[in-house]
Amino acid sequence: MGRSIRTVLMGKRLETKDLPHQAISKVVGLAVFASDALSSTAYATEEILIILSMAAASSASMWASNGQFLGISLPIALAIALLIAIVTISYRQTIHAYPNGGGAYIVSRDNFGEVPAQVAGAALLTDYILTVAVSISSGVAQITSLFSELLPFKVHIAVAVIGLMTLVNLRGVKESGRVFAVPTYFFLGTMFLTIGVGLARYFGGSLAIIDPTTVEALHHSELPPEAGIALVFLVLRAFSSGCTALTGIEAISNGIQAFKEPKSHNAATTLTWMSAILISLFIGITFLANQIQAIPSHSETIISQLGRAVYGDGSVMHFIVLAATALILLMAANTAYADFPRLAALQAGDGFLPRQLTYRGGRLVFSWGIVGLSLAAALLVIIGNASVTALIPLYAVGVFLSFTMSQSGMVRRYQRIGRMKPGEKVRGVETDLEYDPHWRFHLAISAIGAVCTFVVMVVFAVTKFVHGAWFIILLIPSLVFVFFRIHDHYKRVAKALSLAGRPVDKEARDVQTLILIDDVHAETARLVNFAKSLKHPWHAVHIGVNPEKAEKVKSKWEQRIGEGEFVVIPSPFRLLAEPITDYILQLQAEKPGSYVHVIMGHLAMDTFWEQTLHQNSAFIFNLSLSRLEHVVVTTVPFQIHTNGESALAPQAEAAPA
Amino acid sequence: MGRSIRTVLMGKRLETKDLPHQAISKVVGLAVFASDALSSTAYATEEILIILSMAAASSASMWASNGQFLGISLPIALAIALLIAIVTISYRQTIHAYPNGGGAYIVSRDNFGEVPAQVAGAALLTDYILTVAVSISSGVAQITSLFSELLPFKVHIAVAVIGLMTLVNLRGVKESGRVFAVPTYFFLGTMFLTIGVGLARYFGGSLAIIDPTTVEALHHSELPPEAGIALVFLVLRAFSSGCTALTGIEAISNGIQAFKEPKSHNAATTLTWMSAILISLFIGITFLANQIQAIPSHSETIISQLGRAVYGDGSVMHFIVLAATALILLMAANTAYADFPRLAALQAGDGFLPRQLTYRGGRLVFSWGIVGLSLAAALLVIIGNASVTALIPLYAVGVFLSFTMSQSGMVRRYQRIGRMKPGEKVRGVETDLEYDPHWRFHLAISAIGAVCTFVVMVVFAVTKFVHGAWFIILLIPSLVFVFFRIHDHYKRVAKALSLAGRPVDKEARDVQTLILIDDVHAETARLVNFAKSLKHPWHAVHIGVNPEKAEKVKSKWEQRIGEGEFVVIPSPFRLLAEPITDYILQLQAEKPGSYVHVIMGHLAMDTFWEQTLHQNSAFIFNLSLSRLEHVVVTTVPFQIHTNGESALAPQAEAAPA
Repeated sequence: MGRSIRTVLMGKRLETKDLPHQAISKVVGLAVFASDALSSTAYATEEILIILSMAAASSASMWASNGQFLGISLPIALAIALLIAIVTISYRQTIHAYPNGGGAYIVSRDNFGEVPAQVAGAALLTDYILTVAVSISSGVAQITSLFSELLPFKVHIAVAVIGLMTLVNLRGVKESGRVFAVPTYFFLGTMFLTIGVGLARYFGGSLAIIDPTTVEALHHSELPPEAGIALVFLVLRAFSSGCTALTGIEAISNGIQAFKEPKSHNAATTLTWMSAILISLFIGITFLANQIQAIPSHSETIISQLGRAVYGDGSVMHFIVLAATALILLMAANTAYADFPRLAALQAGDGFLPRQLTYRGGRLVFSWGIVGLSLAAALLVIIGNASVTALIPLYAVGVFLSFTMSQSGMVRRYQRIGRMKPGEKVRGVETDLEYDPHWRFHLAISAIGAVCTFVVMVVFAVTKFVHGAWFIILLIPSLVFVFFRIHDHYKRVAKALSLAGRPVDKEARDVQTLILIDDVHAETARLVNFAKSLKHPWHAVHIGVNPEKAEKVKSKWEQRIGEGEFVVIPSPFRLLAEPITDYILQLQAEKPGSYVHVIMGHLAMDTFWEQTLHQNSAFIFNLSLSRLEHVVVTTVPFQIHTNGESALAPQAEAAPA
Repeated sequence: MGRSIRTVLMGKRLETKDLPHQAISKVVGLAVFASDALSSTAYATEEILIILSMAAASSASMWASNGQFLGISLPIALAIALLIAIVTISYRQTIHAYPNGGGAYIVSRDNFGEVPAQVAGAALLTDYILTVAVSISSGVAQITSLFSELLPFKVHIAVAVIGLMTLVNLRGVKESGRVFAVPTYFFLGTMFLTIGVGLARYFGGSLAIIDPTTVEALHHSELPPEAGIALVFLVLRAFSSGCTALTGIEAISNGIQAFKEPKSHNAATTLTWMSAILISLFIGITFLANQIQAIPSHSETIISQLGRAVYGDGSVMHFIVLAATALILLMAANTAYADFPRLAALQAGDGFLPRQLTYRGGRLVFSWGIVGLSLAAALLVIIGNASVTALIPLYAVGVFLSFTMSQSGMVRRYQRIGRMKPGEKVRGVETDLEYDPHWRFHLAISAIGAVCTFVVMVVFAVTKFVHGAWFIILLIPSLVFVFFRIHDHYKRVAKALSLAGRPVDKEARDVQTLILIDDVHAETARLVNFAKSLKHPWHAVHIGVNPEKAEKVKSKWEQRIGEGEFVVIPSPFRLLAEPITDYILQLQAEKPGSYVHVIMGHLAMDTFWEQTLHQNSAFIFNLSLSRLEHVVVTTVPFQIHTNGESALAPQAEAAPA
């Protein structure tokens, strides 16, 4: 029953050799890896306009007298588009240089070493968790602003969406790609149609200007406190805020291995498509927002104002635009599900995260990574009360830190290539180095990208420090510290387990066997039978939590079992592990170097729920006795079936007399 | 370290023989058991006024033209006070008849049998969980209405308060009584002072009437839809709503055993005190609410209006009244913590709930019951979004059902006494029966109590059915069903384990030993050493999840261990349990009736966190192999210490050569 439910929810188990068949096409790849990047067009223009509207804050009519401030948004958007183009070209270089996956982690590890690699890893993992939390919170906010009666349940809805996403991703990336392709392309279709119709109406002269009385503009008090500051700082801040459009652009370089062969080529092509779409949408939305004189507001998003201006208030298409935007925001989270588990498995493989993250589950996905991402994101959503405002300032420092690490890693790589002789080839750890006559050009592109993203990161960290960026600035070094603690642990364990230069203990030792007895019944008889079958000397031990019961058990023992010594250990504090530990240490002291072999019973039920009705003390004893050297614990299960019969009887018949 | 944190949080472990010293005095008992009952005075008057205000709903000025409707509240409160008196006298009888604890569960079990007892148990457990959820939600609502910036975190605060309450109660009832005595007596002092000052000002003629413009009266739409219904039904509903004042009155009868000797006498005296205080507060508040013409409102409670009228708006005492009310509502939850674990232990002792609920923890309290109550209440708070309005309608059906069961049980008992001869004494299961010449008088009191509480329960169930009472009406039979399923399970297990009439398997059987190997290192050497020490034939088995690794492990085995057969079982689906199970079944088929003895290693770390960095597969194997008959699993722990040295070396030296 349990297994068939699992199959319906998760699909059939896949064999290890099926791994290559799980690769995805460019069309599916765009849907899986691009939803994060593309969804940022839903808010990037708005972020720019919010900062610029600070300049207009002192004026009564925003557009009439200060249109020139909001008008700066278009050149800013063009500058960001240029940055997107630079980063894209730089990442295409990375994808070809690192065909096995060239995320910031691998590039940093390959070019800078362990510490920078772990910094990049920490930044990326944090970023993925935040992507899930922010995207889902913001998608749910879109839903609850349409259906306000759902508002009190936004945390519940967000957690439920995370749960659903977990399930879909545990089925595997190919299936989740299929599921998520529909909303991604639905969003793309809707937005391109909107921009197309908008441009047609603009050039036809019929595109209306937003009526300022229909939108509640941001109050002065809602504007960031830096209002009235020098214009150059303002433009810088608007630029860095708009740079949220770049979040998610690195996704493909982390996930090259998910593509069909030729992986690098397909991944690079998909990246180019994605950036072209991203730039078109971003410039298109910003241009039209300027033409309709859209006003930053808490009550209505820029996208909604655009939909309204293009299609008319309350039209079906206006609703479709909002629905598509809500959907892509939810789907953006899925990109993180494609990348987080892969990166976590990489780091775990290097021994900086728990090893379990490297295990592929029944559907060949990194199940622990998926579950870990979901738990962390759900925790963030619950703590942050599904509030986008609370989560957004945490979001961009990690992204731009990883951009900077990745591109400066590429700079370092091209420096090394530049030092090589023409035609020379060098075997690298991650990927081979080959002389390239155009290395200066490539280096320049990566260097420009690195400098730009570094500047944006610093601006972000400074301007959003008090709003939450401080948390990330503390978190990333803390994570790196933990990663190295984990690494240190694995190294110590490997050293402790190493047999190199150590004599193997080949001599047999004495074995002292004791049977742990709670009561005397059919299970007890089984324990005694196994102990006798081992043909070592043995005796029975009862922990006397209740002295009256101890007496009763002893007399039952004498009556029913009638052989072997029966020892009662007193336990006035009702403890179980401590008295038996003391007893065992005493036995070991009497016979140094011997094994103490503890045999105990375990009532095995047919179902999980029945099992919870029993104490399951075997697990507790196993755990606490595992601290003792040369003490081994044997669990003798005794099966109880719901029909009330134990299987003792038939087996007893089958046994040779 | 872990242990010392535990001691600070929880106090020192207590010996079983210290149990009698944990008994509490009447003064502490009042604080522990009365906070629930007394806290209901914070809302009972308001509940009556809300219903009565429905009659005034059609009028513009509530008090001017319809004061007569709200004025009915005083006779209703007097009727409820009479009911409190009857129930109190009836419960005093119960306390003396059942000195070991006379809750509805025991009385029902003793007089009616298993099914009614489980019904009463289900009603009481549900009620205790709701007491915690409702009281804490309502207390937190008082806090958040004072500090509105905390409103988005009310669920977090409520869950944190539940956590704190769990901790205090895990320390034990005596300590928690001490902690909780302060707020209970603070509330009592504050409320009696308020009523005293109020009465003095009333008789002095200086008690002001509430200015209707300062309070936002309930809107018509906020009133229950039955507005305009016949007056008699209205009065009945107001009466039943006001009966929330009775909730918590049964607490002492469940907790007699917590009192100092003479337990029954002390418990009965405490009950009388409690009821007298309850009646005084309830009548006093209702009388003064009438005099100041308090208006039911969402924005201000009746208690707050009273404090304002007596002490003046914004006065320190007004604030103190609100703070004391918030505190007692939080403390009311503590009563449930005193009773739920005791009742759950009783039902578990009878085999209707998991046995674990009967174990006393380090501080002699029923730890599992405390934790279970907290988890259930926290779940309710989270699902219900800490909304009192959502939880209140669930609340009273269970209380009054248990009242009815308890008092009709006493009627049955007095009937049996009535059939006895004068001077006769009969040994009962729970308590002895002794002839009492006044049995008709006692029977009449219990019968009146039973009928009254039954009527209130029916009125509650009918009038609040659609608002949530339906859930409880479904839940209680479902719980009873589950209780009997659990009971059935324990009976079947007892039968399966019984040795009566069963031959004990005394013959030794063959033992086939296999060692489960993941890799070859120091831990593997330990496994082999133990297997050799047992002096049975053995061989090694490796589950070949990764064929390349399997080859490597095999060659390492031959090189390092160099003895014993090494078998690789293929596992193309990366499963662990299934291939080894098939292999074992095959071994058993080859040698029927033999034990298969699986020896596996376990890396034991010094700390929990280090342990989580390892696969801990021994536990997983133990769990899945426990389903196989005559398959025993031995775990050989290998200790790894953080200083990087395993303890193998010193022990190896200590071993005899």
